[in-house]
Amino acid sequence: MEKTGVAIVGLGNVGQGVAQLLLDHGDRTARHAGRTLWLTHVVVRDITKPRNVDLPDGVLTDDLSRLIRDNSVKVVAQLIGGIEPARTIMLQLLESGKDVVTANKALLAEHGPELFDRARQLGRSIAFEASVAGGIPIITNVSQCLSANQIVSLRAILNGTSNYIISKMDGEGSDYRSALAEAQQLGLAEADPAMDVDGTDAAQKLAILAHLCFGARVHWSEIPRRGIDSIDECDMQFSKHLGYRIKLIAFAKLVGSGVQLMVAPMLVKSGEPLAEVKANFNAISVVGDAVGPVFFHGQGAGPMPTASAVVADMIDTAVGRTAITFKTLELWADGHKRVDFASPGDLEGRYYMRFDVVDQPGVLGQITGRLGQHRISIASVYQHETQSDRQQTVPIVIMTHHAKESAARAAMKQIADMPTVADSPERFRILS
Amino acid sequence: MEKTGVAIVGLGNVGQGVAQLLLDHGDRTARHAGRTLWLTHVVVRDITKPRNVDLPDGVLTDDLSRLIRDNSVKVVAQLIGGIEPARTIMLQLLESGKDVVTANKALLAEHGPELFDRARQLGRSIAFEASVAGGIPIITNVSQCLSANQIVSLRAILNGTSNYIISKMDGEGSDYRSALAEAQQLGLAEADPAMDVDGTDAAQKLAILAHLCFGARVHWSEIPRRGIDSIDECDMQFSKHLGYRIKLIAFAKLVGSGVQLMVAPMLVKSGEPLAEVKANFNAISVVGDAVGPVFFHGQGAGPMPTASAVVADMIDTAVGRTAITFKTLELWADGHKRVDFASPGDLEGRYYMRFDVVDQPGVLGQITGRLGQHRISIASVYQHETQSDRQQTVPIVIMTHHAKESAARAAMKQIADMPTVADSPERFRILS
Repeated sequence: MEKTGVAIVGLGNVGQGVAQLLLDHGDRTARHAGRTLWLTHVVVRDITKPRNVDLPDGVLTDDLSRLIRDNSVKVVAQLIGGIEPARTIMLQLLESGKDVVTANKALLAEHGPELFDRARQLGRSIAFEASVAGGIPIITNVSQCLSANQIVSLRAILNGTSNYIISKMDGEGSDYRSALAEAQQLGLAEADPAMDVDGTDAAQKLAILAHLCFGARVHWSEIPRRGIDSIDECDMQFSKHLGYRIKLIAFAKLVGSGVQLMVAPMLVKSGEPLAEVKANFNAISVVGDAVGPVFFHGQGAGPMPTASAVVADMIDTAVGRTAITFKTLELWADGHKRVDFASPGDLEGRYYMRFDVVDQPGVLGQITGRLGQHRISIASVYQHETQSDRQQTVPIVIMTHHAKESAARAAMKQIADMPTVADSPERFRILS
Repeated sequence: MEKTGVAIVGLGNVGQGVAQLLLDHGDRTARHAGRTLWLTHVVVRDITKPRNVDLPDGVLTDDLSRLIRDNSVKVVAQLIGGIEPARTIMLQLLESGKDVVTANKALLAEHGPELFDRARQLGRSIAFEASVAGGIPIITNVSQCLSANQIVSLRAILNGTSNYIISKMDGEGSDYRSALAEAQQLGLAEADPAMDVDGTDAAQKLAILAHLCFGARVHWSEIPRRGIDSIDECDMQFSKHLGYRIKLIAFAKLVGSGVQLMVAPMLVKSGEPLAEVKANFNAISVVGDAVGPVFFHGQGAGPMPTASAVVADMIDTAVGRTAITFKTLELWADGHKRVDFASPGDLEGRYYMRFDVVDQPGVLGQITGRLGQHRISIASVYQHETQSDRQQTVPIVIMTHHAKESAARAAMKQIADMPTVADSPERFRILS
């Protein structure tokens, strides 16, 4: 059987998973690829570090140039995290004639245009299934399987760490700090969890999906985003009482003026598939104009689910499917922008609003009056009993009908300025 | 831009949807294919029949030989249902050098080996994404996206008609007859619904998936199957009361001795994604040894969801991805069988059993004693109050722990022979 030389750069958890699949299950990759994927180099910074995978003699090296010079290696899984030296190494690999597979979504989000342009110039390919939603093959699904469709909307849970924390808060009434601490203890959150819990990670993934689904040429930092780190557990409980769960949603919708994009905690109706995504799972709901709604659910992170996506990409690259797909994707290519980025102020939606108000007559009337001035009509109002730790104020929760983001924002600001309302009212979008 | 000639044979609902996508949305197919898919022939039996799609002049024809002789046509969507003349036409198309895309699962289930062998001999390809689960791209997902995995189990709802009927019975307490009549009125069930409701359709789809997931070379008729046409609405209600829904499940599981396959109504725990599949939707839950569980949900039938899959296949075929994939699939190829078909008697599982018994002392003891003799241990027992229309007997429902299919079958037979038990006890597997 024909052999294709392959290599791995970076032997962290995912790299070890990839090595294990290639070494222990060569039969299945050979079957699906019609050739053996022959692991010839694993390049690491420190070859003395103990690792959980037995590599054949001579494979492990700290000398990248050995891999660069080896023309028998056609496909390299580049599994170093962060921006540098990942970026430089990826360029070196492409320039030495190798096709690259990566799981590094942050690198693509920052340097996608440069890397993809360079790969195109060189006639090489970059495969990146593992960069979004781990084991869920969403990249292939939106760029190949649903190619007869115009995707009209996408709603997704793309950050497993946030979903784990938020599920804990929702299910057990934990507060944010203790749920985060538990996630860290289980290895589901980094020591510095900022990128996960502030929505950055989800926005980076959404930017990649927005390119594929809509032809939107958007940098992740342009996407309005809010993470889960500022959610008060009282809002989780009020939402639950109203029949909703709060989830960190990556949202994209095609409207007349372009594509609306945002990452934010939103209320999702209980029983809806996205509301029921548990623990550190990911899920994506895509609507295509021909296929209608399609829903995907699976593990969005973890060594083996991610390795599953990386090895599938290595097979696709080795057999030539990636080369074909990569050519037509035109990802981040100049002139490839097909839609504008719709102004966030024009976003329409329903809202959950919470105001902590002084418990005196007339306050509810003042608030609803102000909403009315902004043409925000009210679907329901819940005034909850005073809680022991909120002696001075009582929370009022208002669920609105459809209103523009700009109107909701302006009304909230004015209401917050009212002397009977505490300083920080809360507002979440209701997913619809 | 380069043009690839394409054609359609059969202009029913799906064919019209395919024509519409190709004609009205040529831009998106061109973008994903890097070339224009140019619809040059639509072959039908009767060109005078009124249809909902405007074809360019000269495209519609009842002369298949015109298409056969046109060497500019590379890809043909063969969308005739049934076995003949679909089989003969597909062979003619392959022999004239055309790659074929089909949605005809019954044809593949009956004549897959012949058709795939012939395509391989001729160096042609057959793409069949639309043949299983309509708009859900499950074929590409299991044969390409999850190719780094050994699939270890698959549980699916693959027949939308059955799921619609069963959801009606479950949700509204309708009986089978009236739910079927409603499905027929809505066009969701054929005038002769036998193939859908007796499990044949689901078994044919499962046979295709079993080839792809496990390398099982199985004819659909070998798969033990039961449909929904014999479900008593009382069992839907008892199940619901116990926290389960009855669903028609296509089931596959890899065990030591091979792969277990069956199609049957089973109890699925409420809240599990498969239990919540509504109306005529389909869903597939696949477990891979690397990726873990992945769940897919979408429309399993209907003109546009099916056309979405057909056109994606046409694009894949036009750009050359299908040719690569088809070679490695070795579907139904001689010598390709990798696993045996595990004996149904060895299937382990939990069971729901209902016995209608004479309302007299000691009967429950007799039944549980008999189960004990077969080493079937009991998880719970529910004796329901007498219903008005079952005056002579009372229903007893027993939920068992794990037991072998052969033991459960033998015990049921002996219990049915007891004078205090009515003739037709009921048994369903509990999905676990």
